[in-house]
Amino acid sequence: MMSVLRSNRLVAAVLIDITGVLYESGSKEAIPGSIEALKRLKQSSIPFKFVTNETQNTREGLVDKLSAFGYEGLITPDDIFAPAPACREYMQKEGLHRPHLLVHPKCLPEFEGFFDLTSEEKDCVIVGDAAEEFSYENVNKAFQTLLSMKQPRLLSLGYGKYYKENGQLVIDLGAYAKALEFSTGLTAEVIGKPSQKYFQTALSLIGVPSSEAVMIGDDIVSDVGAAQKYGLSGILVKTGKFRPGRDECHPEVKPDVIVDNFLSAISIILDHNARNSNS
Amino acid sequence: MMSVLRSNRLVAAVLIDITGVLYESGSKEAIPGSIEALKRLKQSSIPFKFVTNETQNTREGLVDKLSAFGYEGLITPDDIFAPAPACREYMQKEGLHRPHLLVHPKCLPEFEGFFDLTSEEKDCVIVGDAAEEFSYENVNKAFQTLLSMKQPRLLSLGYGKYYKENGQLVIDLGAYAKALEFSTGLTAEVIGKPSQKYFQTALSLIGVPSSEAVMIGDDIVSDVGAAQKYGLSGILVKTGKFRPGRDECHPEVKPDVIVDNFLSAISIILDHNARNSNS
Repeated sequence: MMSVLRSNRLVAAVLIDITGVLYESGSKEAIPGSIEALKRLKQSSIPFKFVTNETQNTREGLVDKLSAFGYEGLITPDDIFAPAPACREYMQKEGLHRPHLLVHPKCLPEFEGFFDLTSEEKDCVIVGDAAEEFSYENVNKAFQTLLSMKQPRLLSLGYGKYYKENGQLVIDLGAYAKALEFSTGLTAEVIGKPSQKYFQTALSLIGVPSSEAVMIGDDIVSDVGAAQKYGLSGILVKTGKFRPGRDECHPEVKPDVIVDNFLSAISIILDHNARNSNS
Repeated sequence: MMSVLRSNRLVAAVLIDITGVLYESGSKEAIPGSIEALKRLKQSSIPFKFVTNETQNTREGLVDKLSAFGYEGLITPDDIFAPAPACREYMQKEGLHRPHLLVHPKCLPEFEGFFDLTSEEKDCVIVGDAAEEFSYENVNKAFQTLLSMKQPRLLSLGYGKYYKENGQLVIDLGAYAKALEFSTGLTAEVIGKPSQKYFQTALSLIGVPSSEAVMIGDDIVSDVGAAQKYGLSGILVKTGKFRPGRDECHPEVKPDVIVDNFLSAISIILDHNARNSNS
């Protein structure tokens, strides 16, 4: 059997989306097979990182949540690459210290204590997945804050179109970043998937080139397409926000493989490595 | 003195934006000189229409509001060309009968009684300037409704970036139309400025070609630029949402004339006609 991945080189790193791969948003348990998949991946000693756009929780909060779903002892905060900590590093590098935050209340601890949140004079606006906090008042306040700045900077923690929650697709923060871009004429600086730089930074933590890495996710554009553009293989799972009948014939993205779930994805990777290390 | 308008032909029709030209949003009185300007225009017998993107009020409500500002007896509902009535005609023509409405409560009477608003199965989503009604819940509901439709149609009552209210720029419905376009992959059908068709329909009511018409407004893109693209002369007033230091050097739109206010605009038009009818 020929490999379904793009080269015969051994897979040296696996990047994994969390929501829709480890668990369904709104559900209280793991997707069947996903815990087993993670155990098998850890046994294989292939390095991995969870590359998420989650901004409704801290990494510590995410680990607690996943533990309750059955992943206890399998995931540490350091395994997770998330937009908010990446944004903090980016802001330090760019000399940004006084953000206006349009984020979820659970995301506030990622910024409190690190930056001056009380100054009237802001130097950037940060958009996260604020969900219910995306009121007209809050969106308008972010718009007006951008207009008031001498050198307006709009930072977006991801750029997704939609995600799945409680069995339904819901609009994602990318729509709000787009709305602010439209009305201000600015271009958002995206920290999160689908930014190439985001994948680059995650892989640099493992020290593996993109050609030897695989991304597993449920978002055909933001996970699979974006990773492929950066040179990774992209595996789409049919869980989470996968849209049957649409994603298989997506006009722009053709995944290397489409599989039923995370367990199938890991099986393919481990088979691939076993076959190619023997040959 | 040479004419500042684009040809020496007599101005045969004047299209006028309302908010920011007749009154400042949030103010309780007319912009100084604007009542006088309208009186002079009416005395001149040049046909005119108010071409507005107002969707926070019916035409009758607008007339009442303007009357209270000092325009009593000068404006009738028939003088006003507004998106909601134009949308009704468009929907009839397109065979759309079951809209999902994301509009301001004051805009509801424009649709109630005309269409079936209770059916579960919608055939279009209409976005107006919903303002406070642009909650995350309502925006998400519009998104999900579009996803649920077999042949999704997104109708946007205008496509503005921002407008001025109580002395501040506020984000306009175009941002929300853009957000829904982004997350659904649809393209909005715009009924209102800056749609070429909107100007065309307004002028067809007067029966004057675009080359003999002038548009007066405070929005450099949606009023002036859009009218110019359709062949009208475009006069920008320095009231309303005019942005000093920016609009004069706009990267894409160069108004035929930039004037202090509506009264200056009417003076220029009447002078132009007087000079050219004598020559």
